[in-house]
Formats: sequence, C-alpha cells, structure tokens
Amino acid sequence: MNVVIIGTGNVAAVISTMIKATQHKLLQVAGRNILKAEALASSAGAEASSLDSVRTDADLYIIAVADTALPEIAQKLHVAGVVAHTAGAVTKDILANASAEYGVLYPLQSLKANLNDLPPVPFLIDGNNNKAITKITAFAGSVSHQVAIADDGKRLKLHTAAVFVNNFTNYLFAVTSDFCKKEGVDFSLLFPLMEETVRRLRTHDPADVQTGPAIRNDLLTISRHLQVLANYPLMSELYSLFTERIRGYWDRSKG
Amino acid sequence: MNVVIIGTGNVAAVISTMIKATQHKLLQVAGRNILKAEALASSAGAEASSLDSVRTDADLYIIAVADTALPEIAQKLHVAGVVAHTAGAVTKDILANASAEYGVLYPLQSLKANLNDLPPVPFLIDGNNNKAITKITAFAGSVSHQVAIADDGKRLKLHTAAVFVNNFTNYLFAVTSDFCKKEGVDFSLLFPLMEETVRRLRTHDPADVQTGPAIRNDLLTISRHLQVLANYPLMSELYSLFTERIRGYWDRSKG
Repeated sequence: MNVVIIGTGNVAAVISTMIKATQHKLLQVAGRNILKAEALASSAGAEASSLDSVRTDADLYIIAVADTALPEIAQKLHVAGVVAHTAGAVTKDILANASAEYGVLYPLQSLKANLNDLPPVPFLIDGNNNKAITKITAFAGSVSHQVAIADDGKRLKLHTAAVFVNNFTNYLFAVTSDFCKKEGVDFSLLFPLMEETVRRLRTHDPADVQTGPAIRNDLLTISRHLQVLANYPLMSELYSLFTERIRGYWDRSKG
Repeated sequence: MNVVIIGTGNVAAVISTMIKATQHKLLQVAGRNILKAEALASSAGAEASSLDSVRTDADLYIIAVADTALPEIAQKLHVAGVVAHTAGAVTKDILANASAEYGVLYPLQSLKANLNDLPPVPFLIDGNNNKAITKITAFAGSVSHQVAIADDGKRLKLHTAAVFVNNFTNYLFAVTSDFCKKEGVDFSLLFPLMEETVRRLRTHDPADVQTGPAIRNDLLTISRHLQVLANYPLMSELYSLFTERIRGYWDRSKG
C-alpha cells in the first residue's frame, strides 16, 4: 500500500525503516521540522513536506507525533485513506474527523531512531470499523510477527504496564550502573544476570523465580548491603522500600 | 580435579550439573539433608554423605550453603585441598581454619535448581593466596566463559548491585504480571520490550536510552496511568516514586 508518515521522531524513523523491507511504498514524510522530514524521506526514497502539504492519495496515513501535537494534526487532516496514530495513551477517536476509517498502530516497544538493529516490535491495533482494522492489521503484519487487537482501554493498560517493565527497570539499571562506575566494579558482569531475569519469564511466572535476601528474610545480608549503600541515599531508600515490598508480596503469596 | 560439594540447594545443584560437562570428578555431595544429598549425588555418579563424613582426599571443596550455615561448617572442616564458598556477601576469611588454601567461587547469577537450561554464569573469584586463586579460577574457567577476580569488598558491591538489577526488577515484573492478569491483558506482549530493555545495555548506557512519560515530563499521560492504577495502591505509590526519581535523575544529567 501507499503510505504517508506524519512526524519525524523515533517512532516515525523506525516505521520508515521498517517500510523499506516491505512491498509498501512510502510516498511522503510530513513534519513540522522540514529538515528532519527531508532526512527521513530521502533515506526512504520519499518526498518531504510541511504539515500543510500532506498528500491526499495514500492508502494509509501514520501519525507518529507527540501526544500533545496529535489534536491539531488530526483536526487539519481530511483524507479518504485509513488514518492511524501510534500513541499508547490517546483514544483513537481523536482521529474521528480526519477520515471515515481511522484507528491505532501502537508499537509496544521502546524505540530509539539511532539504535542500529531494530528489536522485535509487537503492534497493538485498533480501528473504528472493520475496514480500518483490516488495513492497519495488514500493514502491521507486514512489518512485525506479533500483532494484537487492543481497544483504547486495553492499550492504555499495556502502556501503563510498559512503564513498569521498561521505564522503571531502566531507571534501576541507570542508578546501578552509576554506582558500579563510582565504586570501580564492572557493571557488565551483571549482564548475564539481567538477561536471565527477563529470559526465564517466557517459561516461568515472575512470582515463582524471586531470589535474594529480601525473600529469604536474610537480615544480615540486607544490613551489609545497606552499609555498602551508606553514601547513596537514593539507592538506600529504594533498597529499603523494595525489601519491604518483596517480603510483603511473598508472605502474602504463601499465606 | 576431584571435587566435593557441601550443600544441596540451588547453587549446589547447578554446580553439580556443570561438573558433569567437564573432566572433573564429583566425589561426594555432603548435606544436612541426606535425602537431598543422595538425589544430587546419584544424578552425578557421586557418593552422598552427612556433614560429619566429608572426605578428605579432594582437590577442591565447594561449600554452597546458606550464609547462616557457613560458620559452623567452616569450623568443622579441616582438609588439605582448596576450600571455597559460594556466598556473595560473606568474607573469604570465614574459611581460614578449614584449609591453608581457601577462597570464594561466587556465581553472579540467579540460580534455580529446577530451571531446565542453565543460563551463562559469571563467577567472581577470590583466594587467600596464589594457589587458592589459581585452583578456583581453573575450576571456574572450566564451567564458565566469564571469570573475574573480586575481593570481599568488590564482591559485596556486585552482590548489592545484583539485588537492584534482578531482585527489584523481578518484583516489578511480578506486580505487573498480576496487574495484567487482573485486567485481562496479555503480559507476554511485553516480553520483546523487556528483552530489548536489557539487550541494548550491551551497546548503550542506560542513562542514554530512557523513554516514557516521566523523562518527557508528559503530565497528561502520567495522570492517565495513575487513573488506570486507581485500584492498585501499591503500584500507584511505585509509579509516583519512580516518576519523581526519573524526572530528577535526567534533569540532573542535563544540568
């Protein structure tokens, strides 16, 4: 199908890269920032335009912009093709005036334009009618092996869950990496442990594989760790909070 | 080399499994729980014994027991071979009376005896002299591709760091999995995101790849997420804490 991408950020960049490996044709990249639009468009053999000159002859319009920019763009756009936005926490109905067929193409992944190799990207699809759902699902299926239908409510729930398993986890990694640097120990020695923590979830419930001093109620080790963290007040606070939470969680599971 | 394992828990089970793939010979598994010792020993073609009948003719004694059980076992043991414990947060010198050569063989991994396929296991090595370090390093190198020397202080720091990147992360996964179950959305759709969160650390500093509403200061999405979590007070509290922490962390990085 013929595709127009509106937006020039991380998601727009990743989807334009994905399109290159398919039979679809990227006609145009439209953006507020024309230089960024040109950069994306030229690498995909498409034309670049401002937000005021979006073509009207595409089969699918993908709006990949900041949530706050969505309302204005949705208001301006009036096309015959299917229109989809890529936002996890915004209703599909924000697009109700842009086309008779509209919906959502939400990538459930942490995407950075500058990452060299693309990770697998599950897509959550929604649409206001069968034609929209069919079209968006067909596109998603051509760029991803994992496509699921999820309405506004389910998508928002998974978007919230994603914050816990990616954003909060990555914050823990960031403070731990800083700690290792300051203390002169090698953070990369922890990579196999971190990879295993995630890998085994494909076969085990996380509630069944918890290890460490908190679940063992190993007060001596906990106090040794808190001594190690004596000069790291923010980490100490997290350590105490999580230790308490873990003890409460697995006590409850047993009871 | 000829090896004796003292202990019958997760670490003892994993090391006895690892030995099977090497040229080493597991002579004996000694444990407080003789049934568990027999189960481990028989699967490895070794003999089982109580803690009072540990052989004295091995080259390497690996004590893989709970931290609290270490002092008594270390006090009882008097052998000519090298003695190593597997604890992250206990000094090597607890073994000073067990042998003239002693040290540590600490697996920096979350090990469960019942996981079917073994993950890669980095080992942190310490010893009271060159002979101990050489012997323990040789053993570790025969069962793992990643071996590093780390004294008591460094080992305790990495043990503390491991709690953040495994125990606390797995707790976040557990509460998120529970949330998904209760809300009827598919937790496994998050696996590619979780895998990517860890995978990219091999090429990117976690401080450079943070995404999500907190670092964007996207107050509308944050309030939508908190609404989704209205019936989950423990998750709401974590959400607010991490959001505040993330905003503070990346503000500081920019400044």
